[in-house]
Amino acid sequence: MASTFEPTDRTRVLREPHRGIYDRGAIYKILDEGFVCHVGFAVDGQPYVIPTLYARVGDAIYFHGSAASRMLRTVSEGVPVCVTVTLTDGLVLARSVFNHSMNYRSVVALGKAVLADDPAEKREALRAFAEKILPGRWSEARQPNEQELKATSILRLPLAEVSGKMRTGAPLDDEADYALPVWAGVIPLRLAAGEPVRDPKCDASLPVPSYAAHYKR
Amino acid sequence: MASTFEPTDRTRVLREPHRGIYDRGAIYKILDEGFVCHVGFAVDGQPYVIPTLYARVGDAIYFHGSAASRMLRTVSEGVPVCVTVTLTDGLVLARSVFNHSMNYRSVVALGKAVLADDPAEKREALRAFAEKILPGRWSEARQPNEQELKATSILRLPLAEVSGKMRTGAPLDDEADYALPVWAGVIPLRLAAGEPVRDPKCDASLPVPSYAAHYKR
Repeated sequence: MASTFEPTDRTRVLREPHRGIYDRGAIYKILDEGFVCHVGFAVDGQPYVIPTLYARVGDAIYFHGSAASRMLRTVSEGVPVCVTVTLTDGLVLARSVFNHSMNYRSVVALGKAVLADDPAEKREALRAFAEKILPGRWSEARQPNEQELKATSILRLPLAEVSGKMRTGAPLDDEADYALPVWAGVIPLRLAAGEPVRDPKCDASLPVPSYAAHYKR
Repeated sequence: MASTFEPTDRTRVLREPHRGIYDRGAIYKILDEGFVCHVGFAVDGQPYVIPTLYARVGDAIYFHGSAASRMLRTVSEGVPVCVTVTLTDGLVLARSVFNHSMNYRSVVALGKAVLADDPAEKREALRAFAEKILPGRWSEARQPNEQELKATSILRLPLAEVSGKMRTGAPLDDEADYALPVWAGVIPLRLAAGEPVRDPKCDASLPVPSYAAHYKR
């Protein structure tokens, strides 16, 4: 597998090309930090964008496919999709309204998604979802049985036509604006976890697991 | 304007229909809390999903259209899009792997997006972006001039064919699983702001504005 994704006409970052990312390692790092993706597919020319959980396993991305699965069952060769992952890192406050921006990292993966039919593969994908979001949880919770695996629709998208985009750092203002007496800088943003809320039906003597008590992404 | 969106074959929530939202007020509240949307559009059957800033103004959504604008200029009657907004509220830890879930609120808006060409309308949209994300910032930063307004591509999508979806509360386990000695509950998630980082080129005597120092979404 090449260490860099070859940009295509469909994935080359045209706007602000210096922000484009094609390095496989850098892209996988972004994919491994997020856990909600937005999946796009089109039906009769109408695009749909559905949020869903995902995990990268090797050089493929797996995502819950309930929304697109009905369509998939009729299209055995796979459905053209776009899977996009976005991490919002900060609000960028420039001296001019026009130069306000966001710091972010995003990945766009194009290709044909296919249903993962093999129960072992589905199980591995579920394990990847769990371990990615809550390392350690998989082995504590009840494992999926055969029926549950059957009822879970999971799609696989090979990571072949992919690019990323990233903005970091301070605002960039027009030269003349730097003299304006306007505060400028970045408000960092991150997804933060609060105190775990015990299920009212959960025995109060069961300790909160450390992956929940000290949750960090 | 009706207080409820009429579900269509394209927006009716089929999977877990009890989680569907059609009330206009409830949907607008979700739209007003988020500030990054994922816009889907299709070119030659290939869907693309691009993250961008947005704001609701009245019964329309405005979003930055740089990604889709090239296509739009050739399609004066508008381009079919799907604008999706997702707020991730929590991780739901069930006793079985299969019943793990997320608490979230999401909105899916379908329709044809058109370029906002009128400078006054674009100005209002920019003001809505700013005021939504940073109330008070608009009047402090330098206002956009004519050239900047011209260089900004903004799309308008009327909110007509829209639905929302929401999951809240504790995990739902299979009856037999409630006896398992597995901690169950919710880890709340929210987008948190860190300490503002001053632009190195920003005069240190300028105080951090309160909308930045105490940023909350």
